[in-house]
Amino acid sequence: MAKKIGMQTIILDKQPIILSGAAVVGKKEGDGPLARYFDEVVDDEYVGEKTFEAAESHLLHDAYIKALEKSNKSAADINVILAGDLLNQCTAASYAFRDTDTPFLGLFGACSTMSESIAIGAMFIDGGSADYVVCAASSHFCSAERQFRYPLEFGTQRTPTAQWTVTGAGTVILGKDGQGPKITCVTPGKIIDQGIKDANNMGAAMAPAACDTIMRHLQDTGRSVEEFDMILTGDLGSLGSTMLKDLLYRNNIDLKDKHRDCGLMIFDLSKQGVDCGGSGCGCSASVFSTYILDQFKQGLLKRVLFIATGALLSPTRSQQGESIPGVAHAVCVEA
Amino acid sequence: MAKKIGMQTIILDKQPIILSGAAVVGKKEGDGPLARYFDEVVDDEYVGEKTFEAAESHLLHDAYIKALEKSNKSAADINVILAGDLLNQCTAASYAFRDTDTPFLGLFGACSTMSESIAIGAMFIDGGSADYVVCAASSHFCSAERQFRYPLEFGTQRTPTAQWTVTGAGTVILGKDGQGPKITCVTPGKIIDQGIKDANNMGAAMAPAACDTIMRHLQDTGRSVEEFDMILTGDLGSLGSTMLKDLLYRNNIDLKDKHRDCGLMIFDLSKQGVDCGGSGCGCSASVFSTYILDQFKQGLLKRVLFIATGALLSPTRSQQGESIPGVAHAVCVEA
Repeated sequence: MAKKIGMQTIILDKQPIILSGAAVVGKKEGDGPLARYFDEVVDDEYVGEKTFEAAESHLLHDAYIKALEKSNKSAADINVILAGDLLNQCTAASYAFRDTDTPFLGLFGACSTMSESIAIGAMFIDGGSADYVVCAASSHFCSAERQFRYPLEFGTQRTPTAQWTVTGAGTVILGKDGQGPKITCVTPGKIIDQGIKDANNMGAAMAPAACDTIMRHLQDTGRSVEEFDMILTGDLGSLGSTMLKDLLYRNNIDLKDKHRDCGLMIFDLSKQGVDCGGSGCGCSASVFSTYILDQFKQGLLKRVLFIATGALLSPTRSQQGESIPGVAHAVCVEA
Repeated sequence: MAKKIGMQTIILDKQPIILSGAAVVGKKEGDGPLARYFDEVVDDEYVGEKTFEAAESHLLHDAYIKALEKSNKSAADINVILAGDLLNQCTAASYAFRDTDTPFLGLFGACSTMSESIAIGAMFIDGGSADYVVCAASSHFCSAERQFRYPLEFGTQRTPTAQWTVTGAGTVILGKDGQGPKITCVTPGKIIDQGIKDANNMGAAMAPAACDTIMRHLQDTGRSVEEFDMILTGDLGSLGSTMLKDLLYRNNIDLKDKHRDCGLMIFDLSKQGVDCGGSGCGCSASVFSTYILDQFKQGLLKRVLFIATGALLSPTRSQQGESIPGVAHAVCVEA
């Protein structure tokens, strides 16, 4: 039975277990520093499909199959799939999972989707509504550019604040029992909008939401930054990460050397031409599902606060001159 | 503590309560048979805003405020808002709730969003993860036409199988205690795709999913159609409703006179020029949050199976020649 503490945090009595994780990514991600952790690197951006959108669904389905295999569970053991993506309207996930025989609940949290799905899945297991859950998210550089900005053929010049949408899908399997790190508590975040209107500066749109959720989590749990091995944000990138540290510092929270950002980990910013780093639901989903779980397995991590961050960007509202709301959900993972 | 029974159904031990509901709708909906049940009818399709998208957020926020007032709870009592809509990308909900001080989890289930949010909210309350939850969904005829089909200015001729997207937003407040009908069990649905490719025939795309979820619910619970006062689908419309009855009949389930469809209830099909009836997340959300709750209050309903139905239509994938997957989630509401 879950217990609410403070303003927004839920302590999970049963401590649902991350049984396995898997990620399938694109070529550029396979050229990055985390290459050896990914389950598969796909050279063809179409993944053998006819469209980028179909390719993204393909990646997501493959990551799901691989995570399932590693969990030693069968598809019939899974009670529900919780998944989402960036496409209009959660297309990648809907098409990826239409051939499964498992109930599906679609989520939209933009790039916060991975921690949203893990938070909801963990609460379901804790409350007895599910025994085994699939949590998944994906993005694809080509489908996202077409969706949010310009067709690739247009050859738009990138701004220095831009981030590079990760081509990749990540999946974890949560279970009521088994071996693996545990989800001990979750802090669903509020929508925070500080008036950022630049669709090429997602880091700035998301940093205030990340700051709010981290502060809330620390206040609710009474924990300090020192008690974590890592405070892992989704994909703030270099500018957003600097902003987050600054915002927290002004609120008397010093992240010191604890902060890492999936958007800065998945690419080598000095060599790969990704400007401020990686982004997209698939960024934090891929990094968390592979590298982070591996570090837990090796005993190098004992407690991580994972905060995937989402810019709730609507091309339509942006064109209407609206600002971009951000949201961030935190899950605490412990060995 | 929840208990899973059969293949897909979850029995909610705590039986979360629907404390209140409210809906704010457009002029056409206000001219329909359920007019007197709605909390507010807005004559201006812009609701005083500059764009249709902003208008939809406005409706959703207003419905939330009204439901909150009727629940005798304050915004500070709410642990989480679960909401979604049809817009790219869950725009109406993100912007409607960005000024609240409440955690927000975005959902996407197309027109199944209302029962998806109630199902998730009820599982949260049952498991102790939340005490009070907002469940909400919206749609707007003008923003949906622009999003999924053609700009209104284009003056496209409607097909006989078309449905009319409801301009409206519905919200319910669920609580761990208080007065009102109870959520006794939920059946999250699977994605079902029977190959329908016509974006003007949503009823046909959704009927197989509704059939699957209803069959699963009845099998899991061991209940028969006779044990319900109403089997209430979201917005199958006239063609989809006929298909649902036919599909169930072939599986030896006779809906008899128990079936109602929100898409057939919200408009007068003989007079209002809506072809096969109403559709959109806001259709079932508005009807369920007002008329259905009123019938419970009056003692005219004792047990209703509410199955909002969603066509997971992606304009991009449709233009690529793909079929339209459907999904339907069931919640059992009892006096």
